[in-house]
Amino acid sequence: MRPKAFPILVDGKWRPARASETFRAVNPAAGEFLPEEYPVSPWADIAEALAAGARAALEMAAIGPEPVARFLEIFPKLVEGRKGELVSAAHLETALPTEPRLGSVEFPRLLDQLRQAAAACRDRSWCRATIDTKLNIRSMFGPLGGPVAVMGPNNFPFAYNALGGGDFASALVAGNPVLAKSHPGHPSTTRIMAEAALEALRAAGLPSASVQLLYHFAAEDGLRLVSHPSVAATAFTGSRPSGMALKEAADRAGRPIYLEMSSANPVFILPGALAERPDEVAGELFQSCMLAAGQMCTKPGLVVLLDDPAGQAYVDRVKNAFESAEAVVLLGPKVLEGLREASARLAQGGAQRVAGGREPSGPGFRFSPTLFRISGTGFLRDPGALQVESFGTLSLIVLSKDMAEMMEIASRLEGHLTGAIYSHRDGRDDREYAALEPILRTKVGRLLNDKMPTGVAVSPAMNHGGPYPATGHPGFTAVGFPAAIIRFAALRCYDNVRPDRLPPELKDNNPTGRMWRLIDGEWTQKSV
Amino acid sequence: MRPKAFPILVDGKWRPARASETFRAVNPAAGEFLPEEYPVSPWADIAEALAAGARAALEMAAIGPEPVARFLEIFPKLVEGRKGELVSAAHLETALPTEPRLGSVEFPRLLDQLRQAAAACRDRSWCRATIDTKLNIRSMFGPLGGPVAVMGPNNFPFAYNALGGGDFASALVAGNPVLAKSHPGHPSTTRIMAEAALEALRAAGLPSASVQLLYHFAAEDGLRLVSHPSVAATAFTGSRPSGMALKEAADRAGRPIYLEMSSANPVFILPGALAERPDEVAGELFQSCMLAAGQMCTKPGLVVLLDDPAGQAYVDRVKNAFESAEAVVLLGPKVLEGLREASARLAQGGAQRVAGGREPSGPGFRFSPTLFRISGTGFLRDPGALQVESFGTLSLIVLSKDMAEMMEIASRLEGHLTGAIYSHRDGRDDREYAALEPILRTKVGRLLNDKMPTGVAVSPAMNHGGPYPATGHPGFTAVGFPAAIIRFAALRCYDNVRPDRLPPELKDNNPTGRMWRLIDGEWTQKSV
Repeated sequence: MRPKAFPILVDGKWRPARASETFRAVNPAAGEFLPEEYPVSPWADIAEALAAGARAALEMAAIGPEPVARFLEIFPKLVEGRKGELVSAAHLETALPTEPRLGSVEFPRLLDQLRQAAAACRDRSWCRATIDTKLNIRSMFGPLGGPVAVMGPNNFPFAYNALGGGDFASALVAGNPVLAKSHPGHPSTTRIMAEAALEALRAAGLPSASVQLLYHFAAEDGLRLVSHPSVAATAFTGSRPSGMALKEAADRAGRPIYLEMSSANPVFILPGALAERPDEVAGELFQSCMLAAGQMCTKPGLVVLLDDPAGQAYVDRVKNAFESAEAVVLLGPKVLEGLREASARLAQGGAQRVAGGREPSGPGFRFSPTLFRISGTGFLRDPGALQVESFGTLSLIVLSKDMAEMMEIASRLEGHLTGAIYSHRDGRDDREYAALEPILRTKVGRLLNDKMPTGVAVSPAMNHGGPYPATGHPGFTAVGFPAAIIRFAALRCYDNVRPDRLPPELKDNNPTGRMWRLIDGEWTQKSV
Repeated sequence: MRPKAFPILVDGKWRPARASETFRAVNPAAGEFLPEEYPVSPWADIAEALAAGARAALEMAAIGPEPVARFLEIFPKLVEGRKGELVSAAHLETALPTEPRLGSVEFPRLLDQLRQAAAACRDRSWCRATIDTKLNIRSMFGPLGGPVAVMGPNNFPFAYNALGGGDFASALVAGNPVLAKSHPGHPSTTRIMAEAALEALRAAGLPSASVQLLYHFAAEDGLRLVSHPSVAATAFTGSRPSGMALKEAADRAGRPIYLEMSSANPVFILPGALAERPDEVAGELFQSCMLAAGQMCTKPGLVVLLDDPAGQAYVDRVKNAFESAEAVVLLGPKVLEGLREASARLAQGGAQRVAGGREPSGPGFRFSPTLFRISGTGFLRDPGALQVESFGTLSLIVLSKDMAEMMEIASRLEGHLTGAIYSHRDGRDDREYAALEPILRTKVGRLLNDKMPTGVAVSPAMNHGGPYPATGHPGFTAVGFPAAIIRFAALRCYDNVRPDRLPPELKDNNPTGRMWRLIDGEWTQKSV
């Protein structure tokens, strides 16, 4: 390895990777490589981290949740202390605006998320302790017994960072060590997060390998990692092709994997809503598509409405908004390439471009907000290809000839993270809503009314998930505690186990005095 | 199809299968085919049932949980009315004893399970309604949006029957239609169950295709079924090779599948327990191995103890018990074949047969209770092959040279349903227990103390599940409500959805007055 590359974090130590290859992140606004050099780890690095993680898993089981809770309290404080550095690094690496996005939206969200995770860890209700006093059978969710591999996406350098984001926090609360793989788009941001994490885990008294960091590895080593007997589970947020390859490898080996892969986030606009507030609904769509240059997993990429004068006028409104917008700077060259492919795929599928397509001037990776339209009949000719996620400010409006065709379009949807229905406030769309909702309901994780899907609140009631291929399983969410934690936990039953050998959560006495437990069918904070 | 074959149940009607092939079950005690002829359905039957099931899923969503609850109350009553017929049929088809097993153990369990499911359905707490009043985000578990395929095992003709057992009931409570495939070992038992179910669903007002029955189909059609876009999920209980093939097909297609595949149910006997009560522990092991001729997914198939005089004496005790036992009648020829293969595999792996191996006299499929032993060192030479489930009265005792080797054996276990530790009542094994438990804990779904694993109580605290390859996922149980229901449910979030459009479970008003909901972080039965 060239000595100037940054070291990796393995078993509590920053040490040089065994790598001969390195990479540098790109400044997407300038289109130039950034100076910092990071290693592409060979399998030997991964194997060493896995072995250290396996030891850490046993150590974490022995010390219980208290040090994890402390870590999740100390870590955000240290991260907050390095806010300036982090926001600068993230801005350079992603071209996301410093304000409000990075500094005032995503950074506070990161801190809030970690603090919610800390609270869930202290509270312990997440583990759903269930006690049958008559039969003396007791169960709870507990750690998986090994390190969890976390691979984060390009688009949220803080809130979804493999080291520090929601999956990271969830896996730790469940009692598992985390082996984080930085997204190669923002290694410096991730390095600073890891520096804070190492300091926090020492202060908290967590085992040295409870948080480890690699920056990059070959795709085939990723497949080997997610299917390795020592990896307890994997969390992946990213592209559909990468996710599908990882899923196949993990599935074959019987290793759990949680994937957030893609979503077109269909929005159905019923006739009454268009009649009532066309400008408002057009503005909301435009704003939602422009957010973070459309690089949101919840960006509305498919909008369905009736092909009547109001629908036509709506398309014109949105088209004008898209055309008046300046070109957006993307996260990197791959996103730009993906948008060009998406445009070609939509055109190939018979959609017509109504806005965008200009080659923007200026350095870096820029893209003109782009809008396509197609008839409902056209969409139904190839619904598979036309609902593939286009990551970036690119949307497809489908003009269906009648409500029956709109229902048919809904029924041909595959799994998406979200689905929205806009309707008139006075209830005149209620019949259409009642017909559409049951069809859409089974296709999406989160159903919205009169609201665009791009905001994802960190709430116990959130579902940031959905049926395949949006994710790998319709029953789990990546956002919101306690539900997101359960992904990284195993159901552990204790049958006739002696009282002094039970974990604190299952002893007669409520360990925190306020933990919720299901005792003989009643949720209670009392002791047995 | 030959006209004398029994019809299949599709979309509420008993109609002839499109089959040209038929099969007959075997009377395992006599080793003779039973007279009833049943069809092997071609894909066309499956496709028709899937299409009808898809329609039924939408109908069930519209009518809500009340008719399902009624069905789950009426069905056990009708089943109870046909107890004599059912017990006779099951006895003929499985050779399981009429009393106490079928009539007084499994039959009451079937009824109790259905009634618990009905209660869960009425109660609705299973859906874990979660409400964030501040953000107006609400979520709950709801149906998957299509029929659930249920494939039951050979060994529980009532309690795990594809039509009427735990998976069947769980899938229905979650609001899904069931497409049941009878185990070909007990088609007549299943037919009687289905006759009662059809009557019950008419009385309850459920859609005609909410319960459908096929008797058999080709293995390749099974793979096609579990990976079909119209199948919402699959539940399979059976052999590991079949389960693995189904898992691969379902995983590739992104269709959820829940599998209970195999388990050796390791039992660790610590030195103190052997010193204290060797006869008792030997008797418990013997009884547990003999239960249902060892054809239990929770049969202790791997017993680990120290190779010292007490351990040697224990092996002799168990050997004597096994040798004094009469040959057992198995469920069918495949089980016998499997046991012969298992014996060969154990011998091949260096284990020594200490009991069994005689060719029993008498008709049908009989097997002499068989015990193997091997040293810890021998076991560790090929731990993979030596911990494969042997379905039937066949167990392997591992004599380890010291506690360190016993820990090593535990660490080389793969996922099993259960793991048990026997120890002295006075606590003298506590240090060994403390060292062993954390290793064993991550390998099994249910951990027992001083108790054999063969009893599986239907309790909310039960986990009849475990890490791969015991099942496909460590977070789910096949037994115990409400947890077993969640397997067949999708997490559904409602974001900003108007109050009148919310499902009853998520409206401000508690729909039953006693349903448990997580409102702003507190479990409560109150309304918002």
